[in-house]
Amino acid sequence: MDARLESLSAEIQKFCSERDWEQFHNPKNLAIAMSVEASELLEVFQWLTPEQSQNLNAEQKYQARDELGDVMICLLNFAHRLGIDPVEAATQKLEKVKAKYPVEKSKGLAKKYSDL
Amino acid sequence: MDARLESLSAEIQKFCSERDWEQFHNPKNLAIAMSVEASELLEVFQWLTPEQSQNLNAEQKYQARDELGDVMICLLNFAHRLGIDPVEAATQKLEKVKAKYPVEKSKGLAKKYSDL
Amino acid sequence: MDARLESLSAEIQKFCSERDWEQFHNPKNLAIAMSVEASELLEVFQWLTPEQSQNLNAEQKYQARDELGDVMICLLNFAHRLGIDPVEAATQKLEKVKAKYPVEKSKGLAKKYSDL
Amino acid sequence: MDARLESLSAEIQKFCSERDWEQFHNPKNLAIAMSVEASELLEVFQWLTPEQSQNLNAEQKYQARDELGDVMICLLNFAHRLGIDPVEAATQKLEKVKAKYPVEKSKGLAKKYSDL
Repeated sequence: MDARLESLSAEIQKFCSERDWEQFHNPKNLAIAMSVEASELLEVFQWLTPEQSQNLNAEQKYQARDELGDVMICLLNFAHRLGIDPVEAATQKLEKVKAKYPVEKSKGLAKKYSDL
Repeated sequence: MDARLESLSAEIQKFCSERDWEQFHNPKNLAIAMSVEASELLEVFQWLTPEQSQNLNAEQKYQARDELGDVMICLLNFAHRLGIDPVEAATQKLEKVKAKYPVEKSKGLAKKYSDL
Repeated sequence: MDARLESLSAEIQKFCSERDWEQFHNPKNLAIAMSVEASELLEVFQWLTPEQSQNLNAEQKYQARDELGDVMICLLNFAHRLGIDPVEAATQKLEKVKAKYPVEKSKGLAKKYSDL
Repeated sequence: MDARLESLSAEIQKFCSERDWEQFHNPKNLAIAMSVEASELLEVFQWLTPEQSQNLNAEQKYQARDELGDVMICLLNFAHRLGIDPVEAATQKLEKVKAKYPVEKSKGLAKKYSDL
């Protein structure tokens, strides 16, 4: 991983270790945490129109940034626990997705990202 | 952002742009996508015991890595769209969390990460 | 509970019991299942505009109905396991919500349902 | 639907109508709301062991019941908006699931409910 990402991940491990929280952080619980945090991020946008979501006010922007930080923390914690490099995992996944959705067949069509 | 993260983020933008998918990628829809992907990651662990989640077999490990890749892709896409540096957002959030959960008061207590 | 709801709940219990699945169905796992199913329902709407979501085609309508069935099954299974009457729980919650959002203060304002 | 369920659903419609909230309640937004509420229910169980989740204390039990009420409210609102009878949808889904997981092949095996 890159220096800043690696340093952040180490900080998260230190944070958990100092609080003796690793006992709660099995991969299943961390997957729950990531899902709960992603849902809190979604909550920020829940009643906004698509247009409003593109023009967040300062408070909404702050909340989105704050919740995104939580998702990122959970993601790095989870990845560390399973020995996964998240940048590498995403890079390889993107290659799969490119193959699955060739430009000529996918252009302008809303595809289910979740099917990726 | 770091070089690899920045390069991955640029790759994702190129991927979406080539398919003319930005039209679907307003922040609200990307927040939905991140939540849906985090849920698919959780699904891998759904019926596992905490112990089993710490001893994944090869197929489960592969699935977890694959789904984590999706969450990371969505996260970077979302962050790009809102002009957020995810490493910076997580670093600042971690500082807030440290202040909220001082070591002496939090040690060994399961805290709701989601309250962070 | 009402007759049809009670009968459905009993059917679900029989279904699980015949397959010896109660061992996996502790409340935590059923809460995960409900969240995963709700996310699959959301996936149906993921890339639709608000307008499109109000004019589903036959396949989308079928998928939404099918996934809603899953959420309902999980909800009834969870409620049974914890000895909760879901209709009563929702009725009481609605009373709380009415008190929290008085008509005169809430009219026409998008409120965070999740704060209810 | 049964009398109590029907009455509850009507109460929910009245609640929304009085507050002029139908404008926010397109099916997509209600699917988001249901997912967010299901996630809040899951949050109650997030750091509990499977055993602890079977022995909730009074406060946890209250929270679970409260959040389940929210999920049920969202589910009924969503179902009403799309003209779906949730009991019927769940009953038909259960028939599909029975066919997909025959007793002799499924007994004692953790199946992915989400694949149902």
